Amino acid sequence: MSKLNVADAVSEERLWARHVEMARIGGTPKGGVKRLALTPEDIEARRLLVRWARELGFGCAADPIGNMFFRREGTDAGVAPVMSGSHTDTQVTGGRFDGIYGVLAAFEALQAAEDAGITTKRPMEAVVWTHEEGSRFPPGCMGSQVFADPAKLDQTLALTDLDGITVAAALAEFQAALPDLERRPFECPVDAFIEAHIEQGPVLEATGKTIGIVTGIQGTRRFTIEVEGEEAHAGTTPRAHRKDAVLAAVDMIAALRRLMHDDEDKARFTVGRFIVSPNGTSVVPAHVLFTIDFRHPDDEALARLGDQIKPVCADNAGPCQVTVSETRRVPTHWFPDLVPDAILAAAQRLEIPHMHIFSGAGHDARYLLARCPSGMIFVPCEKGISHTEAENAKPEDLAAGAKVLAEAMVALANR
Amino acid sequence: MSKLNVADAVSEERLWARHVEMARIGGTPKGGVKRLALTPEDIEARRLLVRWARELGFGCAADPIGNMFFRREGTDAGVAPVMSGSHTDTQVTGGRFDGIYGVLAAFEALQAAEDAGITTKRPMEAVVWTHEEGSRFPPGCMGSQVFADPAKLDQTLALTDLDGITVAAALAEFQAALPDLERRPFECPVDAFIEAHIEQGPVLEATGKTIGIVTGIQGTRRFTIEVEGEEAHAGTTPRAHRKDAVLAAVDMIAALRRLMHDDEDKARFTVGRFIVSPNGTSVVPAHVLFTIDFRHPDDEALARLGDQIKPVCADNAGPCQVTVSETRRVPTHWFPDLVPDAILAAAQRLEIPHMHIFSGAGHDARYLLARCPSGMIFVPCEKGISHTEAENAKPEDLAAGAKVLAEAMVALANR
Repeated sequence: MSKLNVADAVSEERLWARHVEMARIGGTPKGGVKRLALTPEDIEARRLLVRWARELGFGCAADPIGNMFFRREGTDAGVAPVMSGSHTDTQVTGGRFDGIYGVLAAFEALQAAEDAGITTKRPMEAVVWTHEEGSRFPPGCMGSQVFADPAKLDQTLALTDLDGITVAAALAEFQAALPDLERRPFECPVDAFIEAHIEQGPVLEATGKTIGIVTGIQGTRRFTIEVEGEEAHAGTTPRAHRKDAVLAAVDMIAALRRLMHDDEDKARFTVGRFIVSPNGTSVVPAHVLFTIDFRHPDDEALARLGDQIKPVCADNAGPCQVTVSETRRVPTHWFPDLVPDAILAAAQRLEIPHMHIFSGAGHDARYLLARCPSGMIFVPCEKGISHTEAENAKPEDLAAGAKVLAEAMVALANR
Repeated sequence: MSKLNVADAVSEERLWARHVEMARIGGTPKGGVKRLALTPEDIEARRLLVRWARELGFGCAADPIGNMFFRREGTDAGVAPVMSGSHTDTQVTGGRFDGIYGVLAAFEALQAAEDAGITTKRPMEAVVWTHEEGSRFPPGCMGSQVFADPAKLDQTLALTDLDGITVAAALAEFQAALPDLERRPFECPVDAFIEAHIEQGPVLEATGKTIGIVTGIQGTRRFTIEVEGEEAHAGTTPRAHRKDAVLAAVDMIAALRRLMHDDEDKARFTVGRFIVSPNGTSVVPAHVLFTIDFRHPDDEALARLGDQIKPVCADNAGPCQVTVSETRRVPTHWFPDLVPDAILAAAQRLEIPHMHIFSGAGHDARYLLARCPSGMIFVPCEKGISHTEAENAKPEDLAAGAKVLAEAMVALANR
């Protein structure tokens, strides 16, 4: 259908320059990015995408949860698009690649198809999913979850951030800032979805492969543990009379760590938040809230070990009271063959070193499975470090991922 | 010298009513008090004392660190006063008796002497020491420490609170609000000092005694521990690659707890503050700051166990880096006989049940030892609970303490 191959039209320089420009929006002194969902920074990043899309004549639409769709039309009328994308929001101390790479790679794929003069039967769309990170209105993957299950819209709109701002109010800011977007209902059909992302782990770098063809996404359980003790004077209260919430929490975490220890190093056990009250030097602490993020590739282990968290906390509460709440439970998901096979074929055609890989992190692609066949492309990131300001990746690896993505999208859109 | 005994002139009703009135200034919905040093609430409490003092014709003076002195003159010219007092500031979630009781009991003693028509050779003074709690400009006992060692004034004036306000600026607010106070230099002589205080421990209540004659104040060492790990993604980072600052801190605290365990239950070991960064659910935590408040009545144990904190932390840091800073070190102090003997004699004369007792908490009376013989009177508080909004005490116990105080002050002032 064209002389030029779509992968040849992918521009490493342009893709990198766009990452540099995006990293300025919410850029931190340490070289990271803080761009929480639907804040002025996130809205500025979205506005920049709209500007680029309009310069190329792509359609610009948004749905009621703020997911954005940049569309390059296909030749056949009334068929569902092949979508690709990720998110523009970051962790509080986030990096320059997590999320935004998937958006910019999808955008590059559309532009490469345009530049190469390639037509596709199905439309190709680059997507921004709203609030993937969970840094502002926990939990994350908000946009893709509501897209997959629109019945969740109303309860999601009522969630608030730490300042008491609702999702509905934050969305109104976004809509006011970009009033000209086409409004799209959740019910639009999707043919297939591919998400490109940095690996956020060390495997590709260690094995010297550039492309990870993602087979599935690890299951996750999240818990909030509240330990209730009693305030007392640090200088006068004998140990026997104390209900020290910090010491009880320390015992729980030490016991949970033993529970989660496996020689294979497969369980992922993290106490990420730990908040003490009243948090005074000379006051025996009355209250601790801590969180557990527990993931395991094996659903049986995820169930068995996760179910022990509550009794282990209760057994180690000492004189305190403990309440364990499970706030999130997602099983392991496996991607059906369509998208992984298209990625594999593209990597083979382009002769780029590749391997199959399992995702330890959660991604929007998991929730898209409810709407269409989906899959993911991973590219290496430096030392596997992510969710930090130190996150780094090589321009040539990002471009290789965008080439494979563009090839796979065109192949799927023309099948 | 008078018909009425000074103790008979102490009014339980008046003393209680003044506690109720003071508890409204900074009163919290849970029935506690939040009145941080030199805030508008603390200044209002000080203004109320000035009003009462002026109604009674007492002198009102303040020194350069904001300590206040309410003076009932004696009959002999040029002799040093017998002082009594405590503090008007509270913990962030403080109670209605800690500190303010000692101020109001001293005031009651002066007023009882006035009402009973008793003259003393030496002046009697009720004192407010500035910022005892350490809740705003840590550490605490600011006013009494600078009074004991005026060379500390300049460095103290430069301390800042969490909003960046200096002690000097906060003192200027106080001075502007009460411009008519006599200005007193630090160098004024003091004959003796007695501090009345709730016990903040369970001993008096458990033994059925109303008066504790304090023999000494327990030594304290305070430490700040900073644990430096590395941020990483909770879902993807294998255990072997993690530098988890929370897990390292948990190991340190568990080991320190074993170190501090004694069958006699004499060591007081408290981790009161614990602050995690970045404190995100799905991020392996990179940094923890926690504090240790360690007290022991035995100086040898205080030295030996305290010196092991640093090596124990280092041995349990795992893959993280740890820095241990000692922020405060005060040895155990013993009160010389003069004041405790005067308290004992007063309690015996008044036939109020009493006992000798050791203070687990620190108090301004410790620092006054550098200026004069000093001592303390303890009265019971409910369940020994203090430094919380639930702090409670009985009107009759507070009055009994004020009676013993008034008797002891008059006896010392007339010796």
